[in-house]
Amino acid sequence: MVGKTIGTKLVELGHEVKMGSRTANNEKAVEWVKGAGAKASQGTFADAAAFSEIVFNCTKGEVSIEALKAAGANNLKGKILVDVANALDFSKGMPPFLTPELTNTNSLGEEIQRIFPDTKVVKALNTMNCVLMVNPKLVPGSHDLFVCGNDADAKAKVSEILIKGFGWPEVLDMGDITAARATEMLLPIWVRLMMKFQSPNFNFKIVR
Amino acid sequence: MVGKTIGTKLVELGHEVKMGSRTANNEKAVEWVKGAGAKASQGTFADAAAFSEIVFNCTKGEVSIEALKAAGANNLKGKILVDVANALDFSKGMPPFLTPELTNTNSLGEEIQRIFPDTKVVKALNTMNCVLMVNPKLVPGSHDLFVCGNDADAKAKVSEILIKGFGWPEVLDMGDITAARATEMLLPIWVRLMMKFQSPNFNFKIVR
Repeated sequence: MVGKTIGTKLVELGHEVKMGSRTANNEKAVEWVKGAGAKASQGTFADAAAFSEIVFNCTKGEVSIEALKAAGANNLKGKILVDVANALDFSKGMPPFLTPELTNTNSLGEEIQRIFPDTKVVKALNTMNCVLMVNPKLVPGSHDLFVCGNDADAKAKVSEILIKGFGWPEVLDMGDITAARATEMLLPIWVRLMMKFQSPNFNFKIVR
Repeated sequence: MVGKTIGTKLVELGHEVKMGSRTANNEKAVEWVKGAGAKASQGTFADAAAFSEIVFNCTKGEVSIEALKAAGANNLKGKILVDVANALDFSKGMPPFLTPELTNTNSLGEEIQRIFPDTKVVKALNTMNCVLMVNPKLVPGSHDLFVCGNDADAKAKVSEILIKGFGWPEVLDMGDITAARATEMLLPIWVRLMMKFQSPNFNFKIVR
């Protein structure tokens, strides 16, 4: 759902988008391509990574590293990877907790950066519902989008897509990829707020 | 600092406040009492717990359980305990991480509730600087104060102090004490924001 939402928005903005899946002709990906028009295509994770300048990781956090390994370090080399995922563990029901090895003193964003050192990981968009990611006006007034990563140019390029493309007025740069710990740790309260409001249509705002 | 700030506010509101410390005549507590007026007094943690209807845990999270054990389960029995603390570990420098045993699948608030089952633990105020706790107008506009705990009456009594006393327009009730996981996990981003802004004068707002 996250991949389709972001992919559709990117196609609307004029980008070519290849949706990656475990198999080259994943049924849902093929269906998405039919609806999304001539700039959309699908393939394996490796096909998608090889094809793209910028890769969005929209897989579930619990399988992200496996999916990115399938995409291949060589196909990801030198590229920007926007990590939208959160390593949530639903095995004990709702609300989920974060994968213990990937929180507090580590994070999914950092782990991906560590495993793919030649890729420029930018953590972004992981603190909100996917519909809001590409349509910030869904929630009224101003509210925040956190971005972090080690590479300033990569953050600038991603921020341009988020601002000029997705319509965010600005982004809140939280520093290097270790800040992914902090933004991923917003998920526990996000999930509880979603359960409380019975709606994902809300966002965090830092007021000062 | 948190204890003095809250204690001073409570005295101003007309409450009697006994500041607890490891020793009965802690120098800083004695000094605070001199400045705070006739309704202020000091004593050991046990003295303070025995004296009070409502106990505020304003100790550092790393020593909170030890301090509350010194206060004594009997002295805390049947009482409301407002847990303001966060189990932050600064041993590896800034930014700190949360004590691993007390986060994600546990929290300081829950741990206190588990160790003191006859005390009504209400987690509140832990997501902001202490000056803001008692003066919400320090940050402009509306912003949020999270409250959680297992006892509805205790939450209502604490919320009354926060709203009528401290001046909060409302509180956001996040449910039972397990929600302390979620509010304590806001600290990593709080600390990074404080470092970024070089000021603690900000707060979270949930926009919807």
